[in-house]
Amino acid sequence: MNKKPVRIGVVGYGFMGRTHSNAYSQLDHFFDTQHIPVRQVICGRSEDKVKDFAQKWGYHDTETDWRELVKRDDVDAIDICTPNDSHYDIALAAIENGKMILCEKPLALDGAQGRKMVEAIEAAGLPNLVWYNYRFLPAVTLAKKIIDSGELGRVFHYRANFLQDWTMSEELPQGGAALWRLDAAAAGSGVTGDLLAHNIDCARWLNGDIVSVSAMTETFIKERVHQETGEVQPVNIDDACAFLARFENGSLAIFESTRYARGHKSYKTFEINGQNKSLSWDLHDLNRLSYFDHSVPSETRGWSSIHVSDGDHPYAGNWWVPGLCLGYEHSFVHGAVEFMKHLDNPNAEKAFPDFRHALGTQYVCDAVLESARTKQWVDVKKA
Amino acid sequence: MNKKPVRIGVVGYGFMGRTHSNAYSQLDHFFDTQHIPVRQVICGRSEDKVKDFAQKWGYHDTETDWRELVKRDDVDAIDICTPNDSHYDIALAAIENGKMILCEKPLALDGAQGRKMVEAIEAAGLPNLVWYNYRFLPAVTLAKKIIDSGELGRVFHYRANFLQDWTMSEELPQGGAALWRLDAAAAGSGVTGDLLAHNIDCARWLNGDIVSVSAMTETFIKERVHQETGEVQPVNIDDACAFLARFENGSLAIFESTRYARGHKSYKTFEINGQNKSLSWDLHDLNRLSYFDHSVPSETRGWSSIHVSDGDHPYAGNWWVPGLCLGYEHSFVHGAVEFMKHLDNPNAEKAFPDFRHALGTQYVCDAVLESARTKQWVDVKKA
Amino acid sequence: MNKKPVRIGVVGYGFMGRTHSNAYSQLDHFFDTQHIPVRQVICGRSEDKVKDFAQKWGYHDTETDWRELVKRDDVDAIDICTPNDSHYDIALAAIENGKMILCEKPLALDGAQGRKMVEAIEAAGLPNLVWYNYRFLPAVTLAKKIIDSGELGRVFHYRANFLQDWTMSEELPQGGAALWRLDAAAAGSGVTGDLLAHNIDCARWLNGDIVSVSAMTETFIKERVHQETGEVQPVNIDDACAFLARFENGSLAIFESTRYARGHKSYKTFEINGQNKSLSWDLHDLNRLSYFDHSVPSETRGWSSIHVSDGDHPYAGNWWVPGLCLGYEHSFVHGAVEFMKHLDNPNAEKAFPDFRHALGTQYVCDAVLESARTKQWVDVKKA
Amino acid sequence: MNKKPVRIGVVGYGFMGRTHSNAYSQLDHFFDTQHIPVRQVICGRSEDKVKDFAQKWGYHDTETDWRELVKRDDVDAIDICTPNDSHYDIALAAIENGKMILCEKPLALDGAQGRKMVEAIEAAGLPNLVWYNYRFLPAVTLAKKIIDSGELGRVFHYRANFLQDWTMSEELPQGGAALWRLDAAAAGSGVTGDLLAHNIDCARWLNGDIVSVSAMTETFIKERVHQETGEVQPVNIDDACAFLARFENGSLAIFESTRYARGHKSYKTFEINGQNKSLSWDLHDLNRLSYFDHSVPSETRGWSSIHVSDGDHPYAGNWWVPGLCLGYEHSFVHGAVEFMKHLDNPNAEKAFPDFRHALGTQYVCDAVLESARTKQWVDVKKA
Repeated sequence: MNKKPVRIGVVGYGFMGRTHSNAYSQLDHFFDTQHIPVRQVICGRSEDKVKDFAQKWGYHDTETDWRELVKRDDVDAIDICTPNDSHYDIALAAIENGKMILCEKPLALDGAQGRKMVEAIEAAGLPNLVWYNYRFLPAVTLAKKIIDSGELGRVFHYRANFLQDWTMSEELPQGGAALWRLDAAAAGSGVTGDLLAHNIDCARWLNGDIVSVSAMTETFIKERVHQETGEVQPVNIDDACAFLARFENGSLAIFESTRYARGHKSYKTFEINGQNKSLSWDLHDLNRLSYFDHSVPSETRGWSSIHVSDGDHPYAGNWWVPGLCLGYEHSFVHGAVEFMKHLDNPNAEKAFPDFRHALGTQYVCDAVLESARTKQWVDVKKA
Repeated sequence: MNKKPVRIGVVGYGFMGRTHSNAYSQLDHFFDTQHIPVRQVICGRSEDKVKDFAQKWGYHDTETDWRELVKRDDVDAIDICTPNDSHYDIALAAIENGKMILCEKPLALDGAQGRKMVEAIEAAGLPNLVWYNYRFLPAVTLAKKIIDSGELGRVFHYRANFLQDWTMSEELPQGGAALWRLDAAAAGSGVTGDLLAHNIDCARWLNGDIVSVSAMTETFIKERVHQETGEVQPVNIDDACAFLARFENGSLAIFESTRYARGHKSYKTFEINGQNKSLSWDLHDLNRLSYFDHSVPSETRGWSSIHVSDGDHPYAGNWWVPGLCLGYEHSFVHGAVEFMKHLDNPNAEKAFPDFRHALGTQYVCDAVLESARTKQWVDVKKA
Repeated sequence: MNKKPVRIGVVGYGFMGRTHSNAYSQLDHFFDTQHIPVRQVICGRSEDKVKDFAQKWGYHDTETDWRELVKRDDVDAIDICTPNDSHYDIALAAIENGKMILCEKPLALDGAQGRKMVEAIEAAGLPNLVWYNYRFLPAVTLAKKIIDSGELGRVFHYRANFLQDWTMSEELPQGGAALWRLDAAAAGSGVTGDLLAHNIDCARWLNGDIVSVSAMTETFIKERVHQETGEVQPVNIDDACAFLARFENGSLAIFESTRYARGHKSYKTFEINGQNKSLSWDLHDLNRLSYFDHSVPSETRGWSSIHVSDGDHPYAGNWWVPGLCLGYEHSFVHGAVEFMKHLDNPNAEKAFPDFRHALGTQYVCDAVLESARTKQWVDVKKA
Repeated sequence: MNKKPVRIGVVGYGFMGRTHSNAYSQLDHFFDTQHIPVRQVICGRSEDKVKDFAQKWGYHDTETDWRELVKRDDVDAIDICTPNDSHYDIALAAIENGKMILCEKPLALDGAQGRKMVEAIEAAGLPNLVWYNYRFLPAVTLAKKIIDSGELGRVFHYRANFLQDWTMSEELPQGGAALWRLDAAAAGSGVTGDLLAHNIDCARWLNGDIVSVSAMTETFIKERVHQETGEVQPVNIDDACAFLARFENGSLAIFESTRYARGHKSYKTFEINGQNKSLSWDLHDLNRLSYFDHSVPSETRGWSSIHVSDGDHPYAGNWWVPGLCLGYEHSFVHGAVEFMKHLDNPNAEKAFPDFRHALGTQYVCDAVLESARTKQWVDVKKA
């Protein structure tokens, strides 16, 4: 029981602050890693709120300024849960202070920022992760395992959606603490960085690099009231984005994301079609993986729905028994597990996206936004 | 092209008259049997209606009295599409006149009638069929094929429903031409003979004989206006029936049918669980068969949904191409095909239910109704 | 019963010859139009085969040269069921002889041909239809009805797939009678004209005109043996095609079709997202329409699966009873019904695609193929 | 932040010890009750294992004898997570020492034991709960809310399954720590007490009391090796059980449970059919509730699938955002929440099953087992 504590300082106590805190709280209950996360310091601008959060989640201390947090000797790793426009500054400061980093996605506002972050953290040799959490759902990890086995054969097609409908009302304001995702200054972009980035991370993990894209974006509601100032402002984010893509392995893809698809709450999907097998999945039914195996005799061949909850399915055996579902938050627990395993055994292959992988995803996002602006096919930079 | 015509005289031009006429009309377009049905005579009480029907469906002649029909020299087979209370008389007369019979289900009002019909037609040596049509849907036939292969291993469970909701309104009258199914005098029983009989036929075909049952029935609406007389009458049919059963092969079963299951139109289902494989199906999605194969490695094991429309699926290759659906009426075409094949080759095993098989089903229905009356387990007679 | 016969001469007895013959055979059994189709002449190059087909389907006469067929006095309408490269010649000759035309889709090899066909038939004032049959499935027609009611509000998104996997084997030859769809000379294009054309027709019917597109195509297997000559030839068709589109109403769309999506047989889909409602559908479960109504109180709001088989659903009441499925071939029966209704009442709005509508679809296909070639966004011509 | 601690002593660190510990750990992170559970003492027979468990889950102290645990002054409530044959003794001792009780289901080995437990705890006036956890899944709680609104109208039918396949291998031993559920001495019964008890609890909560039953049970594998002794023993539990039931409200029901339904891991279902609405649900897709509302106009009426994850769905707003799934373990968190709320406000209606409700469920189980033995309908005692 010689556990090695990793003392974490979390910046931001919003939605992501909660998902990460839950991951750190749950990890040791269900997984047996040598390194274990310690909820050391929670940092946020409001002193009252940060103290409440610390008490609720069992943090040992609080900070109200991340510049102080990154200097603390009792913190080993900084977890960045703030809006996208602050990732760069916090990360650079944390690196300067020799801290490991776990950073919310997307890595940065754009590839230029991201490249500097990668250079800095790699030069410093610090362990680092970007929270593309959906990889860590058992069904998605199982898909990765099947694909890595080579059983699909040549891949012909990939398609992925991320559909929501929560911003369809014209009454919805933008900006401010809760709605910064609608403010281009804070978020960098709209659905491209918020939602498609997740799809691109998964796609690159499952199917390799994307080499070129043709995209379109749209802002359906052109003006909104700012939540804090009350002023009517133009909306600068992309409400919707769709793009065609070609992968390095020769396969074709379509990607689409929107916050204007009535009826879909958080409908994130992927499907991959290989010569011998196909796989598909969606977040609304996250415990299931659809699987088609062409080698089954034709009479009984069909798409099968794997309930990814058996003891030998990824992560599932650490939780309950076959047939019992896991949920959304488990993805973060598993992400934290993979980071701890990496600290346990730094030379093994990483099962999580690090800054460099996230930079590659950022480059795809940049190319998508450029293509939408220029109406041209755009080649994607290599990370 | 030396086709052998089978001249058919159909009694009844209602719903079943239409499904059978369609079967006779379509058979030769899609299937290549030596014997082919000829729409010779349609018989019904209303001269106007029977003439309209004959013109629409291309019958060569009409009759208004089935007693005349069964005597005609230009008719080889009688197809009985009338309410249940007339099956016995028409069948006996047809047998006396040496006609083959295709009879709507259920065979008779009860087992006593049915047994005499079986004795008569077997003594006369006349080909005979009862229209338990659902067997002939490709997905159900595929289930039969898989079960007959023995791959399921020991069977533990069978379950089947037939749920509808069309009689839930208290305003619905009973009796008369259109609503005779609500009149116990014409129908014999309610859902037991109308709906459960279908499930029992399939169950016995797929899983063998039923040896004992414990049942309950209920009549939810106790009085209705008679459609023709306008008088308020007690309702004598069973609106709902459920029963437990034990099969000869040691498996357990539950069966349920009702016309009071809000939301279900014609939700007929079955599921069978064997040691190695399970199968399930429902009529609302009739082109699909759900299939579970325990021999698949556990990681990718799941229920698969077979779209039973490939060229090597039962009957499907005679119609269109993979992925294209068939519908309800095709079951009757296939039933007619099997009867014609039997005439082509009388010594081969029959793929359709004859009078004797239908008598076995009738005996189960009788046992179910007796059990509901006596509140005891009842043993089922052997047909 | 004063029916007005429409004597039809069908060119081609292949797959489409069968679906159309079935439509003409079934129409009068289930629908009550004043005009009714008569199976007058079937025309094909092989005298033996055309005679067999005539006998099976009840045609009064045969021809082996369509040039003779179009001149016959006993024929009112020509139904063109031949490969795409012959549509133009047959149609022009039929028009010259004053015949109505029912033409398989796509209208022509390209928009230039198509435009001349439209001009000729409109100048001649002859009734005309193009067989985009999927519109006539009850669930698709119901979607149209709901959309036309205006209840969706502003439309934001449209997406449609047509996925197959039947040409994935390198062993499959191309060309010849059965496989002309793989031969660019006969087919004009690959999946674009064969499959996407269906999706584009539906999309334009349901959501209005498409104004611009950005497309990519791919030919995965570069060479195949020709079925008849045995020689290895380059493959000139598009095996896969995906495109982004913008509609006149401001909505965005993605379309994709391929014959390399392992596990999909004939998976044709659409989804439309409006401000208040969304709809989606697929051909593998063609009796169901998925429907999301945002006006339902949030607690019980969800996607509902309408089993489009009730008496008041489009076309369904003419067939069986609620809960019972229709199949693929019914779409052609309903298409023929709409054409007959148009003859009954020529001034009413047409519920079927005519040559001009099909020309609009052809222009979208042309723009898609041009965009794939040039890697530019291409504006779509107005039909 | 004046929280009132409830110091809990948990007996048993097996599967249920983990689910309850997780509930106590998570409650305060997501819910805001005045009373909050404190992980005070964990008790188990193996000193090593209990110490490990305490460290992993943050218990303040350990015990190896429950007789000591129940006497401790620093414990307010006893949580019984041991095999069924010890519930009675532990509960009586806890009551004697004035402790509140949270007891795993089923309440006792039979109704006789259960009745004494109810009498004792009610005489002592101690808060008490039985862990029928599935009620607390958001979709099931939503079903309860809809049913309680009266919108279903008269209820006609209820049906529920609990299907598993984990004991189908003849190689599986019985008895011992891990497999006590196969040992009738420890478990009382097989699937009846283990699985059907859950279904009966839900059914009585949702649809009221059951008045009479007709049941059948079966033991498919008659002998197994005992896990600890290595001796071959007869199997005394019911591997499968199905029963017909009548509810006090006049509705009919069928229930079935088995561990021999190949392909089902933990397939727990219910469906209820009322005059106006129907609902159905299953545990494999636990975030969804199927809902049919007959008041929707017939054209767009269908079963809708409610993804029970919106902010105004039961419990869901305390976790993440719409569209994100919860899992199995959340049911226990919510159960603990309801118990804490009851302590906050003892006069409000309880949303959890107490000993008396669980006794009613026990009486149904007793009647089911008696009916299976006697092959008679059996009336159910009132709790």
